[in-house]
Amino acid sequence: MGFYDWMIWTQRYINGTLGLSVPKNTNPLRFGVLGAADFSPVGLFDPASTHPDVLVVAIGARSLAKAQAQASKWNIPLAFGSYQEVLDQPDIDAVYIPLPIAHHAEWTIKAVRAGKHVLCEKSLCCNQDEARAVQKAARETGKVVLEAFHWQFHPVNHVLKTLVDSGKFGRMQSIVTEMRTVFAHTPDDIRLKYEMGGGACLDLAYVFSGLRYFVGSKGEFVVTRTKPTLYPNDKRVDYKMEADLDFHPDNGEPAIHCKAIADLTQPRILGIIPTIEPPRLKIEFEYATVKLDGWVAPHYPHNLLITDKRTNITAKQKHYNFGPKWQAIGETYWTTYRYQLEAFVMKVRGLEPPHWIDLEESVEVLGIIGDVYEHAGMAWRGKTVEEMSV
Amino acid sequence: MGFYDWMIWTQRYINGTLGLSVPKNTNPLRFGVLGAADFSPVGLFDPASTHPDVLVVAIGARSLAKAQAQASKWNIPLAFGSYQEVLDQPDIDAVYIPLPIAHHAEWTIKAVRAGKHVLCEKSLCCNQDEARAVQKAARETGKVVLEAFHWQFHPVNHVLKTLVDSGKFGRMQSIVTEMRTVFAHTPDDIRLKYEMGGGACLDLAYVFSGLRYFVGSKGEFVVTRTKPTLYPNDKRVDYKMEADLDFHPDNGEPAIHCKAIADLTQPRILGIIPTIEPPRLKIEFEYATVKLDGWVAPHYPHNLLITDKRTNITAKQKHYNFGPKWQAIGETYWTTYRYQLEAFVMKVRGLEPPHWIDLEESVEVLGIIGDVYEHAGMAWRGKTVEEMSV
Repeated sequence: MGFYDWMIWTQRYINGTLGLSVPKNTNPLRFGVLGAADFSPVGLFDPASTHPDVLVVAIGARSLAKAQAQASKWNIPLAFGSYQEVLDQPDIDAVYIPLPIAHHAEWTIKAVRAGKHVLCEKSLCCNQDEARAVQKAARETGKVVLEAFHWQFHPVNHVLKTLVDSGKFGRMQSIVTEMRTVFAHTPDDIRLKYEMGGGACLDLAYVFSGLRYFVGSKGEFVVTRTKPTLYPNDKRVDYKMEADLDFHPDNGEPAIHCKAIADLTQPRILGIIPTIEPPRLKIEFEYATVKLDGWVAPHYPHNLLITDKRTNITAKQKHYNFGPKWQAIGETYWTTYRYQLEAFVMKVRGLEPPHWIDLEESVEVLGIIGDVYEHAGMAWRGKTVEEMSV
Repeated sequence: MGFYDWMIWTQRYINGTLGLSVPKNTNPLRFGVLGAADFSPVGLFDPASTHPDVLVVAIGARSLAKAQAQASKWNIPLAFGSYQEVLDQPDIDAVYIPLPIAHHAEWTIKAVRAGKHVLCEKSLCCNQDEARAVQKAARETGKVVLEAFHWQFHPVNHVLKTLVDSGKFGRMQSIVTEMRTVFAHTPDDIRLKYEMGGGACLDLAYVFSGLRYFVGSKGEFVVTRTKPTLYPNDKRVDYKMEADLDFHPDNGEPAIHCKAIADLTQPRILGIIPTIEPPRLKIEFEYATVKLDGWVAPHYPHNLLITDKRTNITAKQKHYNFGPKWQAIGETYWTTYRYQLEAFVMKVRGLEPPHWIDLEESVEVLGIIGDVYEHAGMAWRGKTVEEMSV
């Protein structure tokens, strides 16, 4: 059982939904997948199993054998030996792209031009230029493109965002977003390959997306300090990044200090057992200290802890459904990926999803990451706008 | 320590808010109280302590000594030997009325005519005629009058209502609302006095209010069966009432079977220790069975349990804040009474509260209770419209 199998099994076990699937609508949205990625079961197959309006019908990979193996394991009818063959299927409505980041822009653009909607894994692209090209192609074709910042579809993050925006705790003074993983410990891991768009900042782009979401967009992020830990075998790759930024609000209020920590270096105990560190988020307000442990994947148990400095009361909250946005849509056992898929399908179907992430936000987040790399004296990944062949 | 002191202590202990109070606004809403009721600390004093815009300034009771004793205990500056003196204070904005039910209509009408807004304990009146007179007086004076169906201001009940209305579990087939208390075990309890508006139906009117809220108002309730247990010392008083009703929706869908159980007969263990039975609510849908234990006072721990008959998954939910209505207003430790007070003050201040109960709903609930008494062959309490002296 691989790591991602274990992730799914664990979340389904915790949620009591092992083996759950629902009957499909008569004409569901038909998904193809580009690549036979380990992550697809978490990001798409599991959420699709409980979505009545989603059917995964094809996997295309450079290796036909790998595509066939994954398709067979997950009861997916079609397997192809290339990505292009998936795009060539006229009855496929949408594609899921869990390829290495360096291939995201190219295949997202090809997909929308082939008439497919796209759910693309994070980071959407290697850099802001690529993201703008994706944005342009999406606009021209009228297709839906969503960067899979799944965490942002979970009710507890909407609860926190609403509390931030309400001003009930006064002004935000600082925010820290953290994610630490054990994923990248083998030399052939694509997350450590510069040419594939590797590195902690792009792989764990959540931490920058989190800053952008909670702090908002009405102002300017300025990188003030970066502390990269470089991958020993390739010094172009950030194994870990600590970045400090100041957010200067347009309204002239004092800057908000922001810190993002993206870390691929967490050790394994005895070299085997992953050390599971919940992604942590902490916001300091004038009148409260707020911590959200598990903010990236709150469907594993999360804890929203708010200490009101005026009353000195610390109250714990958990929100697995409802929150300010989802109303009766959703179940307590839905993962972030399931909420994300719900929103994606609503958007494709012409409905107004309770939450959405525009490509402009993806462009902004990649702008922040670009600034961080620049401050750290590290090269941008990917192509410039001139180099984009598509 | 009396029962109500124990209630407050327990809820504050559970919520970790013992001793909590907040600074007041410069010009808060000034409340007077009619009667030195045991229940006032739960219904008003405790919620007011954490409301920056509420100050309790006066208690008036028939016994000046009792008014003084309660005022002194709760640091309330003014005490009067009559209700009228409270209404005569020009700087009192609102009154809280925890009097015996038979006095509600008279004093609510006097209060609004004296220019006071009114938060009146349930039941608003003894019968529908009285309630219509209250409604008329409120309309004429433009004052806010709210029947204290506090349970209906709690987020978890909004969650359940939203799930009901969403239709996601199919058609509602049946609903049972229950409340059982040990309060009425002394012969001098006003809840057992016919002339005071005593009896289980009016005292625990929640169970009918619950039917009305969750089933809705677009249809007709028809009482099909009643099983009263009469108070041995006064057979005019229902010690316990089981009532079956059919709700016939206006849209021609099949009737929804409703059952309400209001019970003042719960025994004490060894004659001393109250048997605490959480108020239970159960709704059967086509595709789900829903139970909400603790629905009347969900700030004591509640459990919303939903079993989806299609997946056979039972998921537990708890909602102490947010839900579909309150957004960032509220704290996890707020009681139903605190949420209710928040809404009341917003209404008085000309704001749109996230939730509200119109007097028309109070009139309808008293109509249901009247039908139940009639079916059981029991006399209505209170005055007819002709007898209303005010």
